[in-house]
Amino acid sequence: MTIEKISQIKSSIKSIPDYPKPGILFRDVTSLMEDAAAYKATIDILIEKYKDQGFTKVVGTEARGFLFGAPLALELGLGFVPVRKPGKLPRETVAQSYELEYGMDTLEIHVDAIVEGDKVLMVDDLLATGGTIEATTKLIRQLGGDVHHAAFVINLPEIGGDKRLEALGIEVYSICEFDGH
Amino acid sequence: MTIEKISQIKSSIKSIPDYPKPGILFRDVTSLMEDAAAYKATIDILIEKYKDQGFTKVVGTEARGFLFGAPLALELGLGFVPVRKPGKLPRETVAQSYELEYGMDTLEIHVDAIVEGDKVLMVDDLLATGGTIEATTKLIRQLGGDVHHAAFVINLPEIGGDKRLEALGIEVYSICEFDGH
Repeated sequence: MTIEKISQIKSSIKSIPDYPKPGILFRDVTSLMEDAAAYKATIDILIEKYKDQGFTKVVGTEARGFLFGAPLALELGLGFVPVRKPGKLPRETVAQSYELEYGMDTLEIHVDAIVEGDKVLMVDDLLATGGTIEATTKLIRQLGGDVHHAAFVINLPEIGGDKRLEALGIEVYSICEFDGH
Repeated sequence: MTIEKISQIKSSIKSIPDYPKPGILFRDVTSLMEDAAAYKATIDILIEKYKDQGFTKVVGTEARGFLFGAPLALELGLGFVPVRKPGKLPRETVAQSYELEYGMDTLEIHVDAIVEGDKVLMVDDLLATGGTIEATTKLIRQLGGDVHHAAFVINLPEIGGDKRLEALGIEVYSICEFDGH
């Protein structure tokens, strides 16, 4: 049953050559969300994996992380905490910068969104380098949150983001994997 | 029951003075999502309002529209179609520009995400000027979609976005209203 669902999910993900730049084969989760059955199967697998494990918050990163993290939080009966680009969150925030291929980017979280001892599940659409989830881990830990789990729809294991996150004590789960970068 | 839920939702929305600029009292839906019961009540009200009405797609605008539109699509058993800022969608898109207070902005949608005759529900967090939902309406109609409904968590009726959308034949629903701009 789960194997059938995973196959359905994987085949709903379109592969777009040369996006966002030449040589990249982009794995497109918007085609998954446009397929109601595949989208529901994705959330169902995540519910089954993470229910009844004592999580108190789900954190998702802007913007595609919202599309999987928010429905999962609702189904698990948990609050959803967004991690966003600078200047997008209205209350007091803490910030964490991280390296991109060229240059740096920064993520922010509300300081009152995570309380000491919260057990946090991080959710994003795709694991490549792991840079955004490493920064998100640091933000949550800075606020006293207990974070040791990250869930992805897609992992690109050749890039090695899973190893990078495991080195931070994060247990990585992905529904499916694709070859390439 | 619904009145109690609406009261719970409204009281979960924090008001942030002088954000994003002096004189603006910002209504913050992130505090709603962080409150698991209020977030679930929000989606439950939208399900009750829009179930069994023949909708075939839910469209949400980047990024806060994703947080309400995506869970609603899942619960209604429909595909979710994101409308995003330029350059964020990987497949072929159409674009629509719209006026901001100072300058212009542009939204895009995948051309294959809406098919002729799709009955579309638009969802966003907050209705102020209605500019983004007017642009979204034009994108959906350009692709042959039938769109006459928009749902919001919050309406700011003094700004008049509801009138602007009604002039386009859009039936506007909001869970709660706030005074001011």
